[in-house]
Amino acid sequence: MVASTRIEQALLTAVEHADVPGCPPRLGAALRHAVFPGGARIRPRLCLAVAYACGDDQPALADGAATALELLHCASLVHDDLPCFDDAALRRGRPSVHRAFGEPLAVLAGDALIILAFQTLVRCAGKAPARLPALVEIVSAAVGVPSGIVAGQAWESEPDAALVEYQREKTGALFVAACMAGAAAAGADPGPWRVLGDRLGEAYQVADDLKDVAADMAELGKPVGQDALLGRPSAVGELGVEGALSRLRSLVKAAVAGIPPCARGEELRALVEAEATRLVPRQLSRAAA
Amino acid sequence: MVASTRIEQALLTAVEHADVPGCPPRLGAALRHAVFPGGARIRPRLCLAVAYACGDDQPALADGAATALELLHCASLVHDDLPCFDDAALRRGRPSVHRAFGEPLAVLAGDALIILAFQTLVRCAGKAPARLPALVEIVSAAVGVPSGIVAGQAWESEPDAALVEYQREKTGALFVAACMAGAAAAGADPGPWRVLGDRLGEAYQVADDLKDVAADMAELGKPVGQDALLGRPSAVGELGVEGALSRLRSLVKAAVAGIPPCARGEELRALVEAEATRLVPRQLSRAAA
Repeated sequence: MVASTRIEQALLTAVEHADVPGCPPRLGAALRHAVFPGGARIRPRLCLAVAYACGDDQPALADGAATALELLHCASLVHDDLPCFDDAALRRGRPSVHRAFGEPLAVLAGDALIILAFQTLVRCAGKAPARLPALVEIVSAAVGVPSGIVAGQAWESEPDAALVEYQREKTGALFVAACMAGAAAAGADPGPWRVLGDRLGEAYQVADDLKDVAADMAELGKPVGQDALLGRPSAVGELGVEGALSRLRSLVKAAVAGIPPCARGEELRALVEAEATRLVPRQLSRAAA
Repeated sequence: MVASTRIEQALLTAVEHADVPGCPPRLGAALRHAVFPGGARIRPRLCLAVAYACGDDQPALADGAATALELLHCASLVHDDLPCFDDAALRRGRPSVHRAFGEPLAVLAGDALIILAFQTLVRCAGKAPARLPALVEIVSAAVGVPSGIVAGQAWESEPDAALVEYQREKTGALFVAACMAGAAAAGADPGPWRVLGDRLGEAYQVADDLKDVAADMAELGKPVGQDALLGRPSAVGELGVEGALSRLRSLVKAAVAGIPPCARGEELRALVEAEATRLVPRQLSRAAA
């Protein structure tokens, strides 16, 4: 099965385990709204790619790990969109969960998605229960305290503004977890897979900064970028467009070099390189060529 | 060690695993504020009592299960107190988390406590990893969807007002989980322990309704009760004070009768009966004598 089909199916199965008769109907609808249709599903795709590279001897468990990470990502989007944070009206081109269902159900949908991630892990670990402890540990570390998504978001509530850098940990944490969980789901030692996640997480951030600039180039004809306007730290702001492109290339190179020995390493290396070229906005890749 | 000391120590250890150097300081403070000082810790005490009755051969795991349940209870209080739900200014006689730390940190502290519950389970399952799957399943079912705390709270957002009854599931779910998790932590089959949790959860609700009336008797000299004023369903409203007291007695009797065969059943039966007499407000126990 193609990875993207496999991921959508696994996510649907997970949500259908929650939204059964007896589930408050509007909460069930809010959960579906938060998860479908998705974005690029980049974290679960990375998780499955690593599991495949490691042999994927327990595909149901790899699906469970990939699903758990995406549910947690969706939970963080739902809570980040709340009025007390970004007060976002739109998400993926549709009303955010709190705009569509109200603030109480947005808080509860986020909570439910966090819990559903762990319910999904345990449900999918049926045939390989010995792998559950490592997976719960990896996944919870990525989202919790002291250094997961929740901690990253909490740095915004600290008075010391210099600490805003920590907020960038948010992206990195789930990329690291995607690689480590993919390995753990396939019975491999997750530790050596941290490097790949770290590098790809950083590459994704740089690509995001470049995308921000490219969007403004398309609209305004000059590279300003929302990050610059909002005074947010940005690789482009620090290094310029050329510098950021070069940083992105060296991060991808480091990521590929950091792939540990595994059954299907060559395929994973090719996949990471192919995905990396897709990360660079077209306007800029032409400009940089 | 006395159960209450053991619980406070286990909760402190759990929070200290989150609030380490690298944790955003105000988030760490919000977590401590949410967990300490606690209420009656009735759910973790029940969990440890059942684990003890079942032999308590893995006390660290029983501590982990008890802690996880209390962290989840605290998380639900933090989120329930938010402006979009009860907008409570006070909790346990002090400012609620959102009043003390602001709304963003209250949302994040609740999220972090949910995740910390699972981190605590996996940390404490080190010596008995085979018991982890059942514990994750029991604990997540109690708080998640379709029939845990989050689902119970979500019924308040449903247009059909008759469904408010479902909200009462919220209390029951954690009592059931406390009994089942205590058994599972000690290596016993958790299934037969559901009945005890169900009965005690219902008894606790009736006792709560009675307390509500007793408080008004003390203040106003007549049994009115906030539940009656707010039009909330209440055992006293349905059965009267005498009827509710009689219902409480029969629930406790059913709870005691429902204790499955176990190593220290006699001690657990005595404990449940002793705790049950403490549940009845003094004014009413005299009135009913």
